Amino acid sequence: MTDTDERAILIAEADLNCFCAEVLKRLNLPAVEAEIVADCLVEAELRGVHSHGVIRFPVYVRRLQAGVFNARPDIRVTRETRTTAVMDGDNGMGQLVSLRAMELAIHKAKDGDCAWVAVYNSNHNGTEAYFTQMALEHDMIGFCFSVGGINHVAPWGGAEAILGNNPFAIAIPAGEQLPVVLDMACSVAARGRVNVAAARGESIPEGWCTDAQGRPTTDPHEALKGFVLPIAGPKGYALTTVIGMLSTMLSGAAFGTDVTHLYDDFKRPQNIGHLIGVLPIASFSDVAEFKRRVDKGIREIKNVKKAPGVSEIFLPGEREYRTLIECRKSGIPVAVGTVGELQELSKEFGVPLRLRCA
Amino acid sequence: MTDTDERAILIAEADLNCFCAEVLKRLNLPAVEAEIVADCLVEAELRGVHSHGVIRFPVYVRRLQAGVFNARPDIRVTRETRTTAVMDGDNGMGQLVSLRAMELAIHKAKDGDCAWVAVYNSNHNGTEAYFTQMALEHDMIGFCFSVGGINHVAPWGGAEAILGNNPFAIAIPAGEQLPVVLDMACSVAARGRVNVAAARGESIPEGWCTDAQGRPTTDPHEALKGFVLPIAGPKGYALTTVIGMLSTMLSGAAFGTDVTHLYDDFKRPQNIGHLIGVLPIASFSDVAEFKRRVDKGIREIKNVKKAPGVSEIFLPGEREYRTLIECRKSGIPVAVGTVGELQELSKEFGVPLRLRCA
Repeated sequence: MTDTDERAILIAEADLNCFCAEVLKRLNLPAVEAEIVADCLVEAELRGVHSHGVIRFPVYVRRLQAGVFNARPDIRVTRETRTTAVMDGDNGMGQLVSLRAMELAIHKAKDGDCAWVAVYNSNHNGTEAYFTQMALEHDMIGFCFSVGGINHVAPWGGAEAILGNNPFAIAIPAGEQLPVVLDMACSVAARGRVNVAAARGESIPEGWCTDAQGRPTTDPHEALKGFVLPIAGPKGYALTTVIGMLSTMLSGAAFGTDVTHLYDDFKRPQNIGHLIGVLPIASFSDVAEFKRRVDKGIREIKNVKKAPGVSEIFLPGEREYRTLIECRKSGIPVAVGTVGELQELSKEFGVPLRLRCA
Repeated sequence: MTDTDERAILIAEADLNCFCAEVLKRLNLPAVEAEIVADCLVEAELRGVHSHGVIRFPVYVRRLQAGVFNARPDIRVTRETRTTAVMDGDNGMGQLVSLRAMELAIHKAKDGDCAWVAVYNSNHNGTEAYFTQMALEHDMIGFCFSVGGINHVAPWGGAEAILGNNPFAIAIPAGEQLPVVLDMACSVAARGRVNVAAARGESIPEGWCTDAQGRPTTDPHEALKGFVLPIAGPKGYALTTVIGMLSTMLSGAAFGTDVTHLYDDFKRPQNIGHLIGVLPIASFSDVAEFKRRVDKGIREIKNVKKAPGVSEIFLPGEREYRTLIECRKSGIPVAVGTVGELQELSKEFGVPLRLRCA
């Protein structure tokens, strides 16, 4: 998932973190909450998931300035049982709302129950992995399903994008091995890659996109007028539909034509929905035994016979953990274009942004 | 998912059901349990999911005869909290064990909790959809994850099949519309289709399979020595890995190299695992309001602008429901080859099999 095909400038983790948090504080977020959002964005960068890192920061800033994000939300539970809850995000930043929802799920599961929280009035929350990973240190399996903040995907056979490329994550604790963290959306390729191809005058591979009439295309300009294709055709369409419904129907968040556009609509709050849950391992198994089993499964996969030209097999989330460890040391490579946007924000808010090297 | 490209013979639902149940009773299953397994198989046929219908019956019979399925299992809960359980299937037929696990999850969720049951010592359970659909009449969302009973899939970059094409289902209740039922496995195409292509001397599409070295192939004979490719490459590999782990690690069911072969190993029980869960809607939302939301989402998808040549958009599970209604009336089209195998069982057990027409 690392996009290293563009020129990048290194920024130290702490510098990027301080910059984002400081700008958010100028936009009226309480310090603690500004730091949570900054941490989510910077962790995505550290993990190499640049598509969900600070490239999103400018639109977040614009939405806060437009008042279409609430900088000081009253996030609250509107309905609950011992093991379930519905959370009203009060149009707060999605990172903050999702973190609160996962905290609540973990709290409810502390005595051995599984627990699920359905969220509405939230916003774009960055990477789903961040929240599911919170469950790991509590020896729980974490789940996070979200509805996407842009309708890019047409129903299978359709020629109108009324579905998001809905993302979900599942995190499973391991023992000596790295935890297994799946974080994926339901399309073959991110729309950002189509933009890159269009800018470079390159064609896109078959199977990524259709044109506006729903016909397959390799022309990125036609593709940008059209739709992002779901993985494996009807299977991916079914998956994104069901993940979208799981993320919205229990809480009354926006689905289908009610989903407004993250980048184009600065008037209407998005009412993004999530479904966040945990399974506490100790209720099912001795925790050490569980972790030995997961470690064994991981070792078997790592040690499998390799295809020609392949030097290593990676588990879901493994590359991202390794990238994180590297980038903690070496700095985060932020694409030149994104750095430019951050520098404009730096000027606008009078918050310095220190670059490690150019 | 309907495979109607082979000559088929019609069999009435009741006749196929009686035949399967009667053979299972001769194999020492109690009457009620024989009828449950028969119902699962026949419902798969009615829904057009022939790959998980009576085509599996001969191997089930052989496994019962070999004593590698337990005809009279003592299915029991080995660990539980108010909202979680671990179930030992005692090597009973997977349909029976999965049904008991879903019954338990529904029972535990009756007072408004979410509930999850991890299962081990189970077997191949047919379609995951069957069990998730049990949740619908209780106004619950149903989940079922299972580990596959054959390792067909290599880790991404690997050249050794140590992962199953692990299936999962999610069922969401609707109001006036049909419920939304996702039931999929993590490969591009079922291996059965490769067999068909090999028999017909046809090539297979790119992206379905690799050869034994892990290289892409369109030759079905090479493909049968190789691996089934996961959907969307690394995404499908990640998905099948995580679904496999969810289905096995909480209960200690077989994963990776511990998975024996459904069709090749008649000595060792498979120790198949499932993870089965429910979310009761009333804990999150007024149920009628939830169903109105789902209906609205379904209507929007159905009414979307269509791509050229497309006459209708289908929701996940919709085709299967419609096929079921048709086949209830017209009879179930069972492939000639499968009918031949059933007729052999008919002779072997002295249980008549009535065909509607040839």
